[in-house]
Parts: sequence; structure tokens; C-alpha cells
Amino acid sequence: MTKRIAIIGAGPSGLAQLRAFQSAAEKGAEVPEVVCFEKQENWGGLWNYTWRTGLDQYGEPVHGSMYRYLWSNGPKEGLEFADYSFEEHFGKQIASYPPRAVLFDYIEGRVQKAGVRDLIRFDTAVRWVEKAGDQFNVTVCHLPDDRTYTESFDHVIVASGHFSTPNVPQFDGFETFKGRVLHAHDFRDAMEFKDKDLLIVGTSYSAEDIGSQCWKYGAKSITVSHRTAPMGFDWPDNWAEVPLLTHVDGNTAHFKDGSSRDIDAVILCTGYKHHFPFLPDELRLKTANRLATQDLYKGVTYVNEPALFYLGMQDQWFTFNMFDAQAWWVRDVILGRIEQPDTATMVADVADRIAREDAGKDDYDAIWYQGDYVKELIAETDYPSFDVEAACQVFKEWKGHKKAGIMTFRNNSYTSVITGTLAPAHHTPWKDALDDSLEVYLKN
Amino acid sequence: MTKRIAIIGAGPSGLAQLRAFQSAAEKGAEVPEVVCFEKQENWGGLWNYTWRTGLDQYGEPVHGSMYRYLWSNGPKEGLEFADYSFEEHFGKQIASYPPRAVLFDYIEGRVQKAGVRDLIRFDTAVRWVEKAGDQFNVTVCHLPDDRTYTESFDHVIVASGHFSTPNVPQFDGFETFKGRVLHAHDFRDAMEFKDKDLLIVGTSYSAEDIGSQCWKYGAKSITVSHRTAPMGFDWPDNWAEVPLLTHVDGNTAHFKDGSSRDIDAVILCTGYKHHFPFLPDELRLKTANRLATQDLYKGVTYVNEPALFYLGMQDQWFTFNMFDAQAWWVRDVILGRIEQPDTATMVADVADRIAREDAGKDDYDAIWYQGDYVKELIAETDYPSFDVEAACQVFKEWKGHKKAGIMTFRNNSYTSVITGTLAPAHHTPWKDALDDSLEVYLKN
Repeated sequence: MTKRIAIIGAGPSGLAQLRAFQSAAEKGAEVPEVVCFEKQENWGGLWNYTWRTGLDQYGEPVHGSMYRYLWSNGPKEGLEFADYSFEEHFGKQIASYPPRAVLFDYIEGRVQKAGVRDLIRFDTAVRWVEKAGDQFNVTVCHLPDDRTYTESFDHVIVASGHFSTPNVPQFDGFETFKGRVLHAHDFRDAMEFKDKDLLIVGTSYSAEDIGSQCWKYGAKSITVSHRTAPMGFDWPDNWAEVPLLTHVDGNTAHFKDGSSRDIDAVILCTGYKHHFPFLPDELRLKTANRLATQDLYKGVTYVNEPALFYLGMQDQWFTFNMFDAQAWWVRDVILGRIEQPDTATMVADVADRIAREDAGKDDYDAIWYQGDYVKELIAETDYPSFDVEAACQVFKEWKGHKKAGIMTFRNNSYTSVITGTLAPAHHTPWKDALDDSLEVYLKN
Repeated sequence: MTKRIAIIGAGPSGLAQLRAFQSAAEKGAEVPEVVCFEKQENWGGLWNYTWRTGLDQYGEPVHGSMYRYLWSNGPKEGLEFADYSFEEHFGKQIASYPPRAVLFDYIEGRVQKAGVRDLIRFDTAVRWVEKAGDQFNVTVCHLPDDRTYTESFDHVIVASGHFSTPNVPQFDGFETFKGRVLHAHDFRDAMEFKDKDLLIVGTSYSAEDIGSQCWKYGAKSITVSHRTAPMGFDWPDNWAEVPLLTHVDGNTAHFKDGSSRDIDAVILCTGYKHHFPFLPDELRLKTANRLATQDLYKGVTYVNEPALFYLGMQDQWFTFNMFDAQAWWVRDVILGRIEQPDTATMVADVADRIAREDAGKDDYDAIWYQGDYVKELIAETDYPSFDVEAACQVFKEWKGHKKAGIMTFRNNSYTSVITGTLAPAHHTPWKDALDDSLEVYLKN
């Protein structure tokens, strides 16, 4: 009997898995029956923008964490698919920091070409997964008609992402603060904060980018509160970095150094959780957000249950191309082309990855660490080889460009590691480009 | 072996069930082992205020729909516990429309006295319930340590409420609206909308009360859009009722009659869903929000699986006292004091209730319909009898007071149907009372 494979999620990782199987089939391999369950009504995962926040039209947690006017915060040359270049999709090379709609279009282009949409059951939330003998029983709910059903699978591939469930700390005084307190996950439109004094808590990508957005769209001031260290970029004049928030009192925010500021709203850019409410303890990944996750052999196989895989659960420098490397590798395990070792060997592999990550001293070590990981996986499959070293160099340049100008770095261009073409300069500097539509972006 | 009972939720309904069993035990009955699973860290259900919106600290949907400055929108004389009066709790009679904190205190007082807190497993979300033979397997997650486990029960009582999962319609243009769009479920502080032009969609209690709050706290204007008919109260000058929203274009809202208004924010007061993502089809109640629900014999027993009960799933005139009537009745079924009939009889009971509700012509019929239901249940148990007819009259008076002045109705007083005492007039008219604390409310 043909094996049955369940993929949970049709975002970049789940779509990579669908494309991986389709690519093998295209080359003549016999592939198992694949079913992809997607909670949203369309594919694209986080890249599928929604105005909704909190719970969706079916009462399910909203997956999307993206906001209006979002442009890629890293160069597209670091994430290009090796089997589907930007030039193939758009018919020309495009500038390096596309807005969301442009990247969505690109992701979609590859899977439209692959013809895998029929394998996805949209509007279908996974409710519960259980092991039953050698099989996994997957219970799902088809949301539009509120109908649950259970099917059995030989493998489950969890590709539901880990930037959807917000980590939301409490600070004293939030319960009586007279304005909005929200997590980055619920941020949608910077215009809501025009002329406002905004407090941002956190210093990672969300803080940097949401702060920059709100600055660009006319916030009166941006105050960013850090736990450990300021981001240290050369910020505009109405931008300040301050120590950790201790509490708010009315509309006054107080910080660890005794200073205070009056604020109109608080955006908690405090990260996300790995959250799998549909999995019991024995199947559920528990890991910090790091490059070498806990309990995943080769970063994908759940060591306690090697018929179960997780895609894209690492913290990320590499994204789409890393998900591809993982998806091709998982496919080849399922197709019997790659044999997995015994548990002890898998556990040792995890420990080794963690030790090697921990030995790194800075972001550059981290970039090359993850580059090596991508190289390792693609060497074991037929995923098109590409110049991973050059992609690492792109990330390094990017960091330099951010350091040189946090509000200007998106005006730079990089060379594709897939096609070797240098990206054109964009027609408008990012800070003056208020229209984030695909049509306007492509007018180069 | 002692029976085991699972109660899902420690809000007013779940607490009523705990008190019902404790009351029987107090009188010498042998009662089963009761375990109550509560997702929140404290009891009180909706009455347990949180500043959080969307997802909570554990990534679970926030239960709370209540907001700051919320005062009861109905007289407390309509919801008083027959076994625990306001006078017993506060040591004196208090005014008729208490703010949230006062009602929370009252709810908590009864169960503190009953000593049932140890039966509740807090911070514990129910993940999945399945029938296995005569038993229910209930799988839960203890959220602080992210640990799942499964236990078996003879009965499950679903008391998780139905005013927590928002019903969120889409209107064209929301995806490009340059302000906040939120459901009433996520509304927290009216001060966020001070000096704003606010659009409210919907005409039920949330619309009426959130609009009134925002008016009280200084919104510039309130526009309420209705699908069927305006609420028709005598609104303040900066308040308008308009036909259904058709779309928004930039920050302009357009209505069915061709009129339009510029707005800063949209609050969708469009109701809630019965949502039980932890239940498979064969156990899951599917009903409209009405007085006579689908599939519940006597309004509580799930006809397809009579060992499963639902509390408080009706639309509500009566609240706390009706949950009590239901909880005492369910308890007596479980204790063997009440025998349930065969399925055909239960199904006929449901049909009869629906027909009788449908025959009602107005709100007054609805009030007495639900009053009769409460009477019917308490007549079959030892729940302290009270003057249900007088409670119906309180609701009728209340409706008259709202008609007479939507911003003044909370200044009225009613007579307790439990103790016969007339409530004192409150020291400050509602529209001038900006402090909603318990301490200030009780200064009468």
C-alpha cells in the first residue's frame, strides 16, 4: 500500500515539502500520497497577509504576524530558491528588498508551476495527533462546516512555523494603562500610531522593523526599551533607546535607570513561541529559538519518534532555501533514499550541533554555522547545488549596510547566488516609498 | 468505585457546578470526585479581567471579553444567587448596577465560603476529549510546564462559556483601512478612543455598552451601523445610527443608504460563537445563540450522548441564577436523583422548547420564557426556591429604564428577590462615575 504523509501547514516550509515530492515525481520516482492541512484559506503562511488579529473568522488563532508596508528586512539574494530564481519568476532581475506582496507572488509562482495546490486541504485546522501503532491518527476540523474527521498517516511533517504564537510578558501597570498594549503579532498598520509617542519593548527584528515603519509613517517619537543592550544603530533624532521597562503608571513608562517617558501605546516586540497545541507530550518539540534546536536529528527528525519531522523550527538567517534543503532531505528519508541511524546516534548528532552553535562567538559565526548546515543537507539530496558561501557573504554585507544606515540599508543591491545577476537599485529610497504594492515595486 | 466528573471551565457556570456538589456533600450526600479544568490562572471566567488580547502568556486564546470601566448592564437583582445574597456577601444591600470588580468579588465570595478552590486545576487547557467505552478520555495541558496528560471520567460538563470566541465578519476595505479594526472581544480601554470618530458595527449589548463607554470617556463621535434596525434609544448628540456598512475606502466608511463618514477606528460588536475546539463532532454542541438551544435536553443534557452536559449555553436574560438551576439539576442526574428519559423523549423535549421560544413575539415573552425554564429546573432539585416572577418584573422594569434614558438607566434601584430589600441609590450617576473600583462603589 502507498504510504500516506501528512504535512501540517502550507507556508514556505510546507510548500517546500510539496515541491520536494513533486520534483521527485517529475523525475519519475514513485511518491507517497501527500496531504497538506492548512488552517488558512490560502497558502503562503506568514506571507499571506490578513487585517485580522487575535482570532480569525472561525475562532482559530490568527496565523499572520505580518503588517502593512512590510518590506523584506534582509536581501532577497539570501533566500532565493535554487530551483526557481527571481528572474525566472518575474522575467527580469528585481531590486533586493521586496515588499511582502512581491515575495508572496514569488513563493506562489514556484508552487503554481509545480501544480501542487490540489494536495492542500485549506480551511482545515489540525486538532489532535496521536500515535496508534505504526501510524499517526490526525484529527482535523474543516472549519467552514465545523466538521471533524480523523485520518491515518505513516509520517507527519510539522511545518506550522514558530513566528505565529506571541510571547507576551506582563509589566506592572498594563492593567490600568489608558492606551493600547499589543504584541508585534497584532501590529497591522503604522498609521494607527501617527503623531503618537510609542514605546517598543524588545530589540530583535520586530522591534527594529516596526519601530522603523512607525517612524517612516509619522510617529511622534519611538522609545525602545532593551533588557540586555541597545540595538545601537544610528537612529533618527526622535528615537531613543532606554533600559528595561519596570512598570507603567497611568500613561508614564518607567525604566530601570530611573528615567521615565509619557507614552500613548506599547508594542511588545518580545518574540514568539514554538507552540503545537495539537501534539501530545511524546510528539511535541520543546526548544528554544536557536540555530541548533533540541531533539531534532539533522535539524528535522524528532529523535523520540523518527517517523515525525519538523521543518523550519530553527532560528533563521537562511529561510526559504534552508526549508528547501530540509524538505528535500526529509523527502529522501521517506522515499528510502536516506537511512536514519539509531536513536543514540541521532541524540549525539543533536548534542554535537548544539555544542558547535554554542562555540560560535558572534553573528558571523552564526551565519556560517547555518550556511554549513544548509550545505550539509543539500549535499545528501538532489536539491540544486548553489553557492552557499556567497549567500553567507550577502548576509555579512547586509549587516554592514544596516550598521551604515538603518533607514537606508534597503537601498542597496546584491548579486544573485543563483543566476549571478546584480540586482538593480530600486527606483525610490525605502524611506520615501510609501506604496508597497507589487505593481509599483516592479517599475524598475 | 467513585464516579469521576470533569468540569471544563471555572467561570460562573463551572463554579455553580462545584457549589452544587459541595452543597449536596454538606447535606450528607456521597458525591463523586470532581475535577475542574480552568485555562486561566484564576476563577471567574469572563469576570476575571485581563489587559491581554488575542493570545495569552501561554499562546492560548484569551478568554476575557470584559473591558475596563465595565458596569453591569442589567440590575444585579436579576442575577442574585438564591443561596448567597448580596447582603450576605457585602454585609449590606448595595446599589443595583455594580462594576465588574464588585460582581467578581460577589461570585468569588460564595465559592470561597464553599471551599471548592482545591478542586480546580488552574492554568490547564483542555486539548481533546474522546469517548472510550463508557468513559471520556480528557487530555489537558498544564500550561506553565507545557505538559499534557490524559485522565478518564464518567461525565463531562462543558462550562466554557460562549461569549469568548468572537464572530468577526469581513468588510471590503478593512485590509487597507489606516486605523484599528477590532472586535468587542479585544476592546479594553475607552481612553484609547478619546477624541476619535468611532464606528461600531452591531446593535446588541456590546454595541450599546461599548459605545456608551466610549461616549462617557470622551470619544468625539459614535456611529453605530445596523443590519436590521437601529437600537432606537435617545442617544446623545454626537451619536448616530446608520444602515449597514458596505465598505471602507481609506478612512471613509460607506453605508447601505449611500451615506458615508470619516472614521478613526472600527469596533465590530458582531457577537460570539459557540466554539469547542477540544471536542470531536460526536460530542460537540452546534447551536445558534438562542434561548432554546439545539440538542440539549432540559437545556443541559447533550441528547446524542447523555453522560455529557453543557451549562449556560443559552442566550441569556437570566444568568448566575439560571446557571445554578442547571448545575443543581445536572448534579442530581449524576447523583441518580433524577432519571433521564430515552433519546426520543429528549429529542422531543428539545423540539418543544424550540417551538415555544419561536412562538414568543417580543422580549417580554422571552424573559418569561426563560423565567419558566428556571422555575422548571429548580422545582426538580433542592436549589433554594426564589421569586422568579419578581425577577422577570425586574428585567421588565430595566427595559423601561433603558428606554427612558440609555445614559441614566443605571441610576435606578430595584428590590432584591432573595431578601426583599430595596437597593440604595448609587452615590454618583453612572455617567459621572469615572472610578469603577470596588472601594468607591461600596461607599454608599
